[in-house]
Amino acid sequence: MHLFYTPDINSDNYTLNQEESRHCTKVLRLTGSDIIYLTDGIGNLYKTKIIDTNPKKCKVQVVETQNNYQKRDYYLHVAIAPTKNMDRLEWFLEKATEIGIDEITPIITENSERRIVKHERIFKKITSAVKQSLAAYHPKLNQLKTYKEFMAGCNFDGNKFIAHCYNYNLEHLKNKAESKTKVLILIGPEGDFSKKEVQTAIDNNFEEILLGKSRLRTETAGIVAVNIINLLNS
Amino acid sequence: MHLFYTPDINSDNYTLNQEESRHCTKVLRLTGSDIIYLTDGIGNLYKTKIIDTNPKKCKVQVVETQNNYQKRDYYLHVAIAPTKNMDRLEWFLEKATEIGIDEITPIITENSERRIVKHERIFKKITSAVKQSLAAYHPKLNQLKTYKEFMAGCNFDGNKFIAHCYNYNLEHLKNKAESKTKVLILIGPEGDFSKKEVQTAIDNNFEEILLGKSRLRTETAGIVAVNIINLLNS
Repeated sequence: MHLFYTPDINSDNYTLNQEESRHCTKVLRLTGSDIIYLTDGIGNLYKTKIIDTNPKKCKVQVVETQNNYQKRDYYLHVAIAPTKNMDRLEWFLEKATEIGIDEITPIITENSERRIVKHERIFKKITSAVKQSLAAYHPKLNQLKTYKEFMAGCNFDGNKFIAHCYNYNLEHLKNKAESKTKVLILIGPEGDFSKKEVQTAIDNNFEEILLGKSRLRTETAGIVAVNIINLLNS
Repeated sequence: MHLFYTPDINSDNYTLNQEESRHCTKVLRLTGSDIIYLTDGIGNLYKTKIIDTNPKKCKVQVVETQNNYQKRDYYLHVAIAPTKNMDRLEWFLEKATEIGIDEITPIITENSERRIVKHERIFKKITSAVKQSLAAYHPKLNQLKTYKEFMAGCNFDGNKFIAHCYNYNLEHLKNKAESKTKVLILIGPEGDFSKKEVQTAIDNNFEEILLGKSRLRTETAGIVAVNIINLLNS
């Protein structure tokens, strides 16, 4: 099963862009009448038949549409400090997308060593993971924000949590979060959130949580958090 | 807190090897009376004081010993097919070690594209993760085995599970596994286990389980499994 991410699909006939056309005809070597799947990334899965194998403008026709394909009954937003080593952030994005996440915000915190991320590059990483895991929902990737901007603009109407390592006697996320709810989790950088940032979060009604007894790297903490919320809803 | 893996420690005075001595004195720039921690990887954590900063033979003296440091009350063995791209297997090893795992066996299956792994190289990856996560237990890494050899030599006295994608109506691992038990989980390659391999596992009293509704890559499936067992015991 081959899935293509085509957010602009709006009719039963669709022409793949040049890159996808090439991939479809030259890499996958698909031919007329072969079936490929398209998704708009907002829940619609289109089963389509190839009707023109032009390697620059491959045309397909929708033969079946599934709405709300594998729709989750929870909503998960993770705001995470990009890791110093970009590979680690990209791993997080790939794995989180595979396991299930709805929204991601990269945040610059006081102890962040990395203060720049290439939005387009990491968006592409997410898109590949969407295709690989045959998902019909593409996680929303917000622009990089400072912690302060994020907090100022945060009007999330669900349960809000902040993970940090200052206190290993906190309640575990698995006991705090509830199934079928909207959840926002903050994950800090290599040097953790500052105490001031933790306090700001508490003042903004975030609850402090633990992700386990071990010391986890940023991207591991992110994956563990995503998995906990996924398991609560499985 | 700096942790060194020194499996051969057997008295209160210890001399770091050349590489570790260099790391200690040149990279970390530690000096006399500074504190470093050593672990033998089998549960003992030694707090030591540097008594000689020779950059080739750095000497330390144990000032405090903690036995069974952060001992887990469960045992987890994962047998996993190495991924085609070695980075993915190494990522699994790092994350599994951070989250908590006791034993790992790389297995060659029918659909495995990768049939060789450098034992020493992946052992080192595990060791770095042990040090990074300040753990006193070093996961056991078994030599690469074929699936057949693994099954023939398997006398695991705990609950045995096999994860595969042939049937999405199987019970989820989170509902099958129990806390404070010994667990062995088999994770297949990119092309999944063959049906014959699944049958062989069933014949050897492995229970089939699901790791979620999404299609997960090998290394993601491995991490999800490790995390589920860890959460059951958190």
